[in-house]
Amino acid sequence: MLSAYKIIAKKRDGLELSQEEIKWFLEGLIAGEVADYQMSALLMAIYLQGMTTSETAALTDCMLYSGEVLEFTDDTIIDKHSTGGVGDKTSFILAPIAAACGVKVPMIAGRGLGHTGGTVDKIEAVKGFKTDLGLKFFKKQLMENSVVLIGQTGEIAPADKRLYALRDVTATIESIPLITASIMSKKLAEGARGIVMDIKYGNGAFMKKKSDAKKLATSIRQTGLRFDRNMMTVLTDMNQPLGFAVGNSIELIECVEVLKGKGPKDLIDCSIHLAAGMIHIAGLASTMAKAKTMAKKVVKNGEALKKFRELIELQGGDSSFIDDYKKLPLAKNIYQVKAPAAGYLKSVDNTQLGLHCVSLGGGRMKKEDKIDFGVGFYFYKKLGQKIKKGEVIAEIYHNDEQIKLVEDIAELMVTRDMKLSKTKPKVGDLIDETKISWRK
Amino acid sequence: MLSAYKIIAKKRDGLELSQEEIKWFLEGLIAGEVADYQMSALLMAIYLQGMTTSETAALTDCMLYSGEVLEFTDDTIIDKHSTGGVGDKTSFILAPIAAACGVKVPMIAGRGLGHTGGTVDKIEAVKGFKTDLGLKFFKKQLMENSVVLIGQTGEIAPADKRLYALRDVTATIESIPLITASIMSKKLAEGARGIVMDIKYGNGAFMKKKSDAKKLATSIRQTGLRFDRNMMTVLTDMNQPLGFAVGNSIELIECVEVLKGKGPKDLIDCSIHLAAGMIHIAGLASTMAKAKTMAKKVVKNGEALKKFRELIELQGGDSSFIDDYKKLPLAKNIYQVKAPAAGYLKSVDNTQLGLHCVSLGGGRMKKEDKIDFGVGFYFYKKLGQKIKKGEVIAEIYHNDEQIKLVEDIAELMVTRDMKLSKTKPKVGDLIDETKISWRK
Repeated sequence: MLSAYKIIAKKRDGLELSQEEIKWFLEGLIAGEVADYQMSALLMAIYLQGMTTSETAALTDCMLYSGEVLEFTDDTIIDKHSTGGVGDKTSFILAPIAAACGVKVPMIAGRGLGHTGGTVDKIEAVKGFKTDLGLKFFKKQLMENSVVLIGQTGEIAPADKRLYALRDVTATIESIPLITASIMSKKLAEGARGIVMDIKYGNGAFMKKKSDAKKLATSIRQTGLRFDRNMMTVLTDMNQPLGFAVGNSIELIECVEVLKGKGPKDLIDCSIHLAAGMIHIAGLASTMAKAKTMAKKVVKNGEALKKFRELIELQGGDSSFIDDYKKLPLAKNIYQVKAPAAGYLKSVDNTQLGLHCVSLGGGRMKKEDKIDFGVGFYFYKKLGQKIKKGEVIAEIYHNDEQIKLVEDIAELMVTRDMKLSKTKPKVGDLIDETKISWRK
Repeated sequence: MLSAYKIIAKKRDGLELSQEEIKWFLEGLIAGEVADYQMSALLMAIYLQGMTTSETAALTDCMLYSGEVLEFTDDTIIDKHSTGGVGDKTSFILAPIAAACGVKVPMIAGRGLGHTGGTVDKIEAVKGFKTDLGLKFFKKQLMENSVVLIGQTGEIAPADKRLYALRDVTATIESIPLITASIMSKKLAEGARGIVMDIKYGNGAFMKKKSDAKKLATSIRQTGLRFDRNMMTVLTDMNQPLGFAVGNSIELIECVEVLKGKGPKDLIDCSIHLAAGMIHIAGLASTMAKAKTMAKKVVKNGEALKKFRELIELQGGDSSFIDDYKKLPLAKNIYQVKAPAAGYLKSVDNTQLGLHCVSLGGGRMKKEDKIDFGVGFYFYKKLGQKIKKGEVIAEIYHNDEQIKLVEDIAELMVTRDMKLSKTKPKVGDLIDETKISWRK
């Protein structure tokens, strides 16, 4: 007979749990027959003993079917997920690009917490834009307009929410199988037939080490295959902000710039790569190279920007900001941070940069915190780049009363958060490794 | 700043927690600021990552001072604790022996659960005997009569009770540091200045492997030393019942027999050894050999039995059973189990034997179960002993309506629970290793 005790003991001893055992435990938790303190003991045992691919798939399955599951047969429905980072704003670029190329993009996005921002927070800088629209709207919009963006809903994978809340207070977040099941259960529930996973590593990412990011990539592809999905994983560098902008309104502006054919090169490269991945695994381009050509074309001819405008309008948003950025909430004051010395940019403490945005009010440390869309900063220099003494390296968008705080941030940016070197340092590639697993 | 999350993460990563961190966590649990699900995650991390001697001592200290702590300066106050086993009844023998030799014996004992019995259950077979007498009585009696036996009280180490309840349902019982802290916090709170620890190993013991028993012995001695106690650990074999009797009344009778200079040899040897340990570490005999001579003498001259009679009477018990065993509750029927074949007794499944007593009603599987004092069995044969076909190997004490159950038990005893061999098997020593750690 199954019992919570026996199941915990089995995992504690490093043995593989059966699908039946995992299901029994999770269903027991939801039914109130297994206690939170038993779940957290099992989570710690999983953290320390790991899980096999079968176990991870079984856990994903339980969490997936704990809520509403959308089922589609359309193989062009492809979602992208990022493990998050500082200035990570690719969704607003790649979603309209992919949609303009024939992909259907079902986005259910999260809010920011800690040093990283959230897609839902950023888009809410747009007046009138609604994200709490429910799954019925979600399905309809996906089919009719090819792209939809809503916030997380209690209908999708409620067991994940329950587990995440426990993991968050029991130091069991950073576990490859638990992260895999959490991400995949939500993505699979949306009905995506293929998933592009942007796994970020480095000092501004959730995964500090590239080796851990690789393990997560493998685990996610393997799990996706078990659910008959085409899977692409891309490892990308998060040792500096992606693009220049960090903040809600200014990140949106930067995305619109990219959709207009302008914007920072790293952000363009990353967004085009991920969009091409979506187009490719949707079967709409036979190679990544062809998919990239398609992606670039819809930027150039304005179709991607048109798609973005439609997305905004169809969800109640005022799209006029696309032509006039002043329509977005923007802090009135700009403080220029200047380089105190010359040299090459050797490293930045990306987590600390992300936290500056939080301290200005542009992010949150607790779930209840309110967001100030208008604050943030542009960090203009990239790793390896030459900096002249006195050159403007960053611009901080702030409110009237924040000048003391801004001066402190500027001081920290140039003294603590960035390191210069005399010779040009070696810089890693932005896009490190792309792997695809095709379903049979 | 300390936080439950950081402390769990530190232990999860295999690092040593400070005394301050352990104290903060335990006090937080008791104050309701640390949740049970955080405690159970930490318990699992401790189970899998272990604890150093300093950590174990710090945990013991927290649990110790979560309740009342008796402080004595009298170095002759010595307690014995056993990790428990089938037919383990030495307390009733060694306590009066040690007391008759000048040791003060402060016993706070537990009830049985699962395949092992409990000291408090057994003594409650005596009409009128009270064990819920509180710490005030306990102290007075210890000083005036040298020996006292009460049941566990909420006043002593309440944090241990809290933790044990969690460990019991989260598969975190079998952890050397957690077992050490649980045992030692209770023993130290009683005020004993020295502790003799009987650590049983084998298939009827809590610790199946001798190597684990050794580790526990080391951990317990080291922890005791940190609290300035003289410590003796004795590893004893629990691959067969200790003595012949398994059951509440019949175990008491067997103890009285030993105090009368009779009884089974293994039970005599074990009890005398442990009693001598208490006498020795109390400083009342300079060697174990001298202590054993003293112990044997008070059995022979009747002083130990007299002490036992006083203990019974001073706690309200009717001591007449000592002279007339029929005064104890005893099942009316005796079923004789006969050997179906000849051979040497090679092994017994001691846990299963213990469970037979439970199934007759002599023990409990749940805390709420009621005990039938009169049932149980004598298992007359010892490992390595020659058995003739048809010889009575056991006698089952049972009630009228239990005959079907008893027949099943008898069948299991001879078919499943014992193995015979044609040649005389090698049998391990009853008393394996005795180690003493003297305080400075």
